[in-house]
Amino acid sequence: MDLQRIAVIGSGALGTYYGARLAAAGHEVHFLMRRDYHAVKSAGLNITSPEGDLKLSHPNIYKTSAEIGPADWIICALKSTSIDEAQNLLAPCMAENTRILVLMNGLGLEERFAGWFGAQRIFGGMAFTCINRGKPGHTHHLAYGPITIGHFQDDKAELAKAIGLWSQSKVTIFESPCLLQSRWEKLGWNIPFSGLAVAAGGITTDRIMQDAGLNSAAHALMAEVLTAGNADLEHHSQKTRIDRGVLIDLFFKSTSTMGAYKPSTMIDFVEGRAMEIEAIFGEPLRRAQSLGVPVPQLTLLTTLLRALNHGR
Amino acid sequence: MDLQRIAVIGSGALGTYYGARLAAAGHEVHFLMRRDYHAVKSAGLNITSPEGDLKLSHPNIYKTSAEIGPADWIICALKSTSIDEAQNLLAPCMAENTRILVLMNGLGLEERFAGWFGAQRIFGGMAFTCINRGKPGHTHHLAYGPITIGHFQDDKAELAKAIGLWSQSKVTIFESPCLLQSRWEKLGWNIPFSGLAVAAGGITTDRIMQDAGLNSAAHALMAEVLTAGNADLEHHSQKTRIDRGVLIDLFFKSTSTMGAYKPSTMIDFVEGRAMEIEAIFGEPLRRAQSLGVPVPQLTLLTTLLRALNHGR
Repeated sequence: MDLQRIAVIGSGALGTYYGARLAAAGHEVHFLMRRDYHAVKSAGLNITSPEGDLKLSHPNIYKTSAEIGPADWIICALKSTSIDEAQNLLAPCMAENTRILVLMNGLGLEERFAGWFGAQRIFGGMAFTCINRGKPGHTHHLAYGPITIGHFQDDKAELAKAIGLWSQSKVTIFESPCLLQSRWEKLGWNIPFSGLAVAAGGITTDRIMQDAGLNSAAHALMAEVLTAGNADLEHHSQKTRIDRGVLIDLFFKSTSTMGAYKPSTMIDFVEGRAMEIEAIFGEPLRRAQSLGVPVPQLTLLTTLLRALNHGR
Repeated sequence: MDLQRIAVIGSGALGTYYGARLAAAGHEVHFLMRRDYHAVKSAGLNITSPEGDLKLSHPNIYKTSAEIGPADWIICALKSTSIDEAQNLLAPCMAENTRILVLMNGLGLEERFAGWFGAQRIFGGMAFTCINRGKPGHTHHLAYGPITIGHFQDDKAELAKAIGLWSQSKVTIFESPCLLQSRWEKLGWNIPFSGLAVAAGGITTDRIMQDAGLNSAAHALMAEVLTAGNADLEHHSQKTRIDRGVLIDLFFKSTSTMGAYKPSTMIDFVEGRAMEIEAIFGEPLRRAQSLGVPVPQLTLLTTLLRALNHGR
């Protein structure tokens, strides 16, 4: 694939890691950077990773999107709590053929980007990974790393272009034939495990697996979410459905090998930061309620998480 | 009524306050005391109360029940987390006609006492009050104060004796014609308001009232609990039932006037003490489940509270 001009909007842990991987693959990557701007300007961007450490000594970093200007691709890796700022942050990087990869957590975000910039250019990315920010200018990629990518309208030719972008990188990409289904599948894991990890006081996923009550609660929540997901797929006239039994087995088996994993929402919770409640919990809940799917445990969990997020 | 010899087992906030009220009414009250023994020995028992302050300069206090010996009445005001110690703590105070008032929170406690000492002598008391311990030897009665008392077998003649015990005191007593129903009714308030106050991070009841999501969750939990209560009443061949609509209205109206009330379980939570989860939440949940009543939100709430109580 031709080398692309890429704007990374939101240079947190995810944005810096995946942006650096694309830079290492030869693309021209430009980072919109806030917190770490001065540290990176003086000491570069430093990534530790089991896939090989990376150092970008003089990355292209900017304090405003206008300085980046038009790009072939925008990778939007903002926290979903900043979704309302996304339109203004991306607009200066837009050109006629610019494509946007929404590398964020939660449901309904691509719809916002499609409304602002047109549906044909929008992709959603779900990163299955554990990446933390260290001191300014340092990012620690700890484990996993694949991204599942789908096109907002499930256009196969468009999807191929998104896959191609990563072809020379060390990042494994899975193709999603149905972005909406993939989003719900990821929520099927994220809602029970991130939600219980927070609501049970800030615990790791191994405790949820080992505690009979929490394990059972995770099963019940997962079933509610995936049932709502299938109703939403039907509502959107999608032909595919989630095979709930298979996915639940798969998620519990894979989580049992994760050890003391800290979901990002749980890390936000214990470190006192705003949690991404509305995109990960609120929007799925709203859809389930509007579709008439009974989700009593998701309802209570979301209510508690909103209360715990209060004032952050 | 004749003056009675009373043993107060568990001299926390509730035990000291109500024991002092009975002493002020002329009864011979003996306190089993742990934490505050030395402070009370040297400076007496000091109670502040909107019903009038009380000071017992030289109350009868003991470190062991054996020193108290046989009593006419035992008021057991232990925390329900100490229920397994209750038999040994009460035994030295038992005589042939000793009666026991179980002034504790939760469901199924009277059954334990009935199994140990015989059903005919067991009463349950539900205090609707706000009482905190201050520094050693000091108890602060802040608001409310009535006790609803029922006999374990709903024996009217026996119940009259329990009511009579308090006749010269400043404590308002309500008679419960059906102890099991009264226990469930109290749980109908306690489970949603205490449970959400803890699970939402340690908040006061006014926040539950004002937040639309928490208010709705409180309604849903209350309905689940009272439905389970009615099934349990039926299971125990009781003829009475809780009028759920009336009680829910009453509870929400009365809670709206409480202001920033701190349920005792929420105080335990924020101060890092063990919470009374099994008696208040676990036993009602077990009964609902064994009776086949769907209680998805009670299930999740109890699971979260157990996790939050872990290691305390």
